[in-house]
Amino acid sequence: MASKVTLADLEDLCRGAAVLGTGGGGDPYVGRLVVAQAMREAGAVELIALEELDDDALVVAVGNMGAPTILIEKIPNGDEPVWALETLEARLGRRATAVIPFEAGGSNATIPFLVGAKRGLPVVDGDGMGRAFPELQMETFNVYGVSASPVALADPHRNRVLIEARSAEMAEWLARGVAIRMGGRASLAEYAMDGATAKRVSVPATLSLCLNLGGVIRRARERHADPFAALIAALADTHYSHGRDLFSGKIVDLVRTTTRGFAIGEAAIEGLGRWRGRMTITFQNENLIARHAGEVRAIVPDLICMLDADTAEPITTERLRYGQRVRVIGISAPPIMRTPEALAVFGPAAFGLDEPFRPLESLPEAGAG
Amino acid sequence: MASKVTLADLEDLCRGAAVLGTGGGGDPYVGRLVVAQAMREAGAVELIALEELDDDALVVAVGNMGAPTILIEKIPNGDEPVWALETLEARLGRRATAVIPFEAGGSNATIPFLVGAKRGLPVVDGDGMGRAFPELQMETFNVYGVSASPVALADPHRNRVLIEARSAEMAEWLARGVAIRMGGRASLAEYAMDGATAKRVSVPATLSLCLNLGGVIRRARERHADPFAALIAALADTHYSHGRDLFSGKIVDLVRTTTRGFAIGEAAIEGLGRWRGRMTITFQNENLIARHAGEVRAIVPDLICMLDADTAEPITTERLRYGQRVRVIGISAPPIMRTPEALAVFGPAAFGLDEPFRPLESLPEAGAG
Repeated sequence: MASKVTLADLEDLCRGAAVLGTGGGGDPYVGRLVVAQAMREAGAVELIALEELDDDALVVAVGNMGAPTILIEKIPNGDEPVWALETLEARLGRRATAVIPFEAGGSNATIPFLVGAKRGLPVVDGDGMGRAFPELQMETFNVYGVSASPVALADPHRNRVLIEARSAEMAEWLARGVAIRMGGRASLAEYAMDGATAKRVSVPATLSLCLNLGGVIRRARERHADPFAALIAALADTHYSHGRDLFSGKIVDLVRTTTRGFAIGEAAIEGLGRWRGRMTITFQNENLIARHAGEVRAIVPDLICMLDADTAEPITTERLRYGQRVRVIGISAPPIMRTPEALAVFGPAAFGLDEPFRPLESLPEAGAG
Repeated sequence: MASKVTLADLEDLCRGAAVLGTGGGGDPYVGRLVVAQAMREAGAVELIALEELDDDALVVAVGNMGAPTILIEKIPNGDEPVWALETLEARLGRRATAVIPFEAGGSNATIPFLVGAKRGLPVVDGDGMGRAFPELQMETFNVYGVSASPVALADPHRNRVLIEARSAEMAEWLARGVAIRMGGRASLAEYAMDGATAKRVSVPATLSLCLNLGGVIRRARERHADPFAALIAALADTHYSHGRDLFSGKIVDLVRTTTRGFAIGEAAIEGLGRWRGRMTITFQNENLIARHAGEVRAIVPDLICMLDADTAEPITTERLRYGQRVRVIGISAPPIMRTPEALAVFGPAAFGLDEPFRPLESLPEAGAG
């Protein structure tokens, strides 16, 4: 089932990754030029399913960290993720045999292809977040027992830092501090594990899902069909099985600050057409909770995606604008992300939310007037 | 010329190191209990002169970093410097054969004895600052071409970080960020070098100077002699040859804040006895410049030491108090610290001071009325 991801696939991959980004993970189009350049030089990159991994493969998670608002302004030069990987490999005394995104949402879905192209390594079809999350401990890798450390970071000036922390939370805390001092953004390599472990702890098939969702939206647009209906239909036979129209309207209020290295804030959407009242969406890089008429309509780790109301193009937190017309889609997180262990690490309480997790499909719909 | 430093020497060492601390470097008495415990368990520690080092020895600089105001409140558990050294050794693939203080002023003069006792290693009689300085690039090691990186840091919870930075300044910037996130203080191991290099780039004999100065002050007190005169006399045949009475009086104003991990501020002293007018002393952890009657009386890297006016006990920046009676002594830095290369790294401009460096012995004295 190994397939090749080519330059021509990159646009679909980015669009699908932006859907799973749920507002965060970094704008996937920003890093795209760098990845495209690497693919142009190295050719296609192999995408392999988790079950194809050798049990004794050395799989390393790679990506970038930093506030999305800074990611927009600081375009990476493209070598940092490779330097981060090399720093980790030097510590392990072993070369990686495959890379995996720690986060399939946003620009971090593309970084493994950059590393894959530059290093001739396959990319594993899966990830540790099944979406985007703001912190490094919010990984199924961590939930199911893989050590985040050693974590290697690199910046565009080739400064490198290796962290060996007592917990994934401490690794996040130290790495975030380093990333801030590296100019607000750093590339990293972490959660080194063998193939047998990767099969057990990864959210499966998330990169092929990104490719598929990106393609579904594009093709619906090309044939002037409804891209939202196509997106929801495409989810049905995946492990992200429930897609739901949550709301549609115009952004009438927007509060957004960069605090502690995160983009934190809230957007209020005034209903248009058949949608009445206001939906508010709270975010910390990613959209965390959607409320309407005093009811929770979707809550983390389920996915809350804001898309352009006309084109179904996903909108990242930092691109939200007053007056923008958006459609909000909820997507159920896969079962591996809804276990009690998983919810303890990236459920609502991990973000300071008082509301308990309730599956999207069990919540009342905002309905239409 | 190898000698043994025993538990009985520790008090003199700390007092002398506090003189070279020029207000900073951490209160040497705080870490003393931990060092004493290690010496009690392991016995005396060998102190070897630079010239006794094998040219192919592996010398590693060890110490702590953090705001002195935090060092007072957070007493180390004593294993962190060893963990930092081990982290560096793992990266180098080689065990250290000797340790050296990166800073002979303040508590960092004692840390190598802690590591020496715990690891059975000799301590080299010299250091990289010849006093205390607030930042890691302010080292003769750096001035004369040794790479600060890799820098290893450890905290009391055994979190460890390894930094490989493009410059000593960037190593400082990243290490400071990590130390802040480790709770405001971290132990570190850095500036790994061979014995031949250590001989060329170190400020020599600074630990035996600390032992000697501490002993001179103690013995003068014991025989009811003038400890200040004894201190100045003891400097005459060292490479810190000029000791000078700068001022004496009462602290009448004190501004001190902890900013960016540093204790920054200014003390004003009103003259008493034969001393007229006011002396102001500006500090960033360490005392940087002493001004009186519109004239500079001493300026970094020359040493400005505030001592208790009765006992000649050195006073660290964080122990300064309104109303305290102090005597200010200036000490000339050794020639290796006054070269143009050295002044470029830790001269007045490195601290944002507009005044050029002028040797203490060439400056007009504040005089007496």
